[in-house]
Amino acid sequence: MTIIYLTDLVGTGVFAISGTLAALNKKKDHDLITLFFFGFITATGGGTLRDVVIDAHPVVWISDANYLIVIVLSVIVAILCRRWWLGILQSPLLVFDTLGIGIYTIFGLKKALMMGVNTWAAILLGVVSALFGGVIRDTLANDVPLLFERQLYVTPCVTGALVYVLALTLHLDPTINFLLSAGIITGFRLLAVKKNWSLPPIRV
Amino acid sequence: MTIIYLTDLVGTGVFAISGTLAALNKKKDHDLITLFFFGFITATGGGTLRDVVIDAHPVVWISDANYLIVIVLSVIVAILCRRWWLGILQSPLLVFDTLGIGIYTIFGLKKALMMGVNTWAAILLGVVSALFGGVIRDTLANDVPLLFERQLYVTPCVTGALVYVLALTLHLDPTINFLLSAGIITGFRLLAVKKNWSLPPIRV
Amino acid sequence: MTIIYLTDLVGTGVFAISGTLAALNKKKDHDLITLFFFGFITATGGGTLRDVVIDAHPVVWISDANYLIVIVLSVIVAILCRRWWLGILQSPLLVFDTLGIGIYTIFGLKKALMMGVNTWAAILLGVVSALFGGVIRDTLANDVPLLFERQLYVTPCVTGALVYVLALTLHLDPTINFLLSAGIITGFRLLAVKKNWSLPPIRV
Repeated sequence: MTIIYLTDLVGTGVFAISGTLAALNKKKDHDLITLFFFGFITATGGGTLRDVVIDAHPVVWISDANYLIVIVLSVIVAILCRRWWLGILQSPLLVFDTLGIGIYTIFGLKKALMMGVNTWAAILLGVVSALFGGVIRDTLANDVPLLFERQLYVTPCVTGALVYVLALTLHLDPTINFLLSAGIITGFRLLAVKKNWSLPPIRV
Repeated sequence: MTIIYLTDLVGTGVFAISGTLAALNKKKDHDLITLFFFGFITATGGGTLRDVVIDAHPVVWISDANYLIVIVLSVIVAILCRRWWLGILQSPLLVFDTLGIGIYTIFGLKKALMMGVNTWAAILLGVVSALFGGVIRDTLANDVPLLFERQLYVTPCVTGALVYVLALTLHLDPTINFLLSAGIITGFRLLAVKKNWSLPPIRV
Repeated sequence: MTIIYLTDLVGTGVFAISGTLAALNKKKDHDLITLFFFGFITATGGGTLRDVVIDAHPVVWISDANYLIVIVLSVIVAILCRRWWLGILQSPLLVFDTLGIGIYTIFGLKKALMMGVNTWAAILLGVVSALFGGVIRDTLANDVPLLFERQLYVTPCVTGALVYVLALTLHLDPTINFLLSAGIITGFRLLAVKKNWSLPPIRV
């Protein structure tokens, strides 16, 4: 069991928790099954989309039952702790989501590069891995995805991805590079939310 | 022409009818082409998603023109009979949809198992085969999919799928197993709708 | 660099412009990144869906960075010219979209036929190539896609695709056939919008 495999399982669990909390936070009527689907789609949607587009079969959760087990357990933990986590100013929802985004962007970028994808498409696919689970979840729930709001959401991911690619050419140690670039994404995103940063608007 | 092939064509037709009636039932403005797309997406969406995710190419309706022919004919039948079917308390819409769900859950589960998917992912993919045609249709039409309402919709599918997997380990005759487990799904779902059953709510 | 490759790049750019203008036209709040995603999804969504469904890997924008470069440049051009283009009665938005639809329907149809897809599914996949970038974009933006409005949108595409298939059996010169059938789609669609044509409604 390598560190990469563990990181992927942790990222999956973190995103399943964030998806469950996001669904609960909307205050709609949910049961165990609907919450599982929101957690499952948030955790697997982006990575599955990436793997299908780059033809990286088998998709992990299909060949390895551990991913589904982690998702089921994470959804249950999120449900049990929901009052505690959502009560204190929704910050855990943000923290889980932001941690997941940092891990998955770099993870998806690495996987795409390993499959021989060109660097620019690989950066885009890193962003897709990280954000499209949430995009699919929001679209199914009939919300406009956060991706299309004028927040700094994609920009931190692209920044971290560029750092990763640059450090790769400089032969930085892979683990340090992963921690550094994923950390930049998470830190940048948290700062952007706290400071309410945004890019300049473009209007007609 | 095997019984499995025939079952798949019948399931396709049944779902195309249910998709067309569902679109008409929303009372929006439709023409022959928009209704065909609703029927087509309902009939093929779940199975196509399953095949793309498990890399089971070619997707059936691409290699075999009979599926599209069945869909076109079913949409036309649904349109011709629409007043008769939708007038009498919308029960045919429910019956067609529920029959399709029973058939497709087990069909999708079987196909995933044959492709070497782990049992838990195979059960999930059976549910996806059966329900995601409708989910994609509802999402495109800007409705919240039934899947995310607090109805018993996934639960009957999972129950029937578990029965199928259990009976498989007991070496039950495949045809009997198919009829039994698909019948459990259809019966359970019809009862749940009639009795208005639901799982306990989870709220914050 | 063949004429087909150039046509594909031009179609990609035209669709990226149409997607950016469509997003701006909704008057929502946008920045450079959100507009890029709308342009990217409009330009690549339909073709990526087609390639994933028919298993035609690698998807073009993954193996060839030129597609992403064309998209980025087109989005920037669309942003710079937005007041000029959207001010004069929105006709450039319509023209770009309609040109893209003509090019992509025939391009998608050709590619599907080359992959051995049956003729009817190939026609459907041509339509999907041309229209589903916009469908995905509209669905993500929480609008009902134009495809499901009672406009003549699919009908011109199917008409041009049928002409292409017919002329193929008559051994018409490929380039002339491409220009003829794509031209029929664009002309028919523009006429339909101008004259407000529609198919007869089907109501319950």
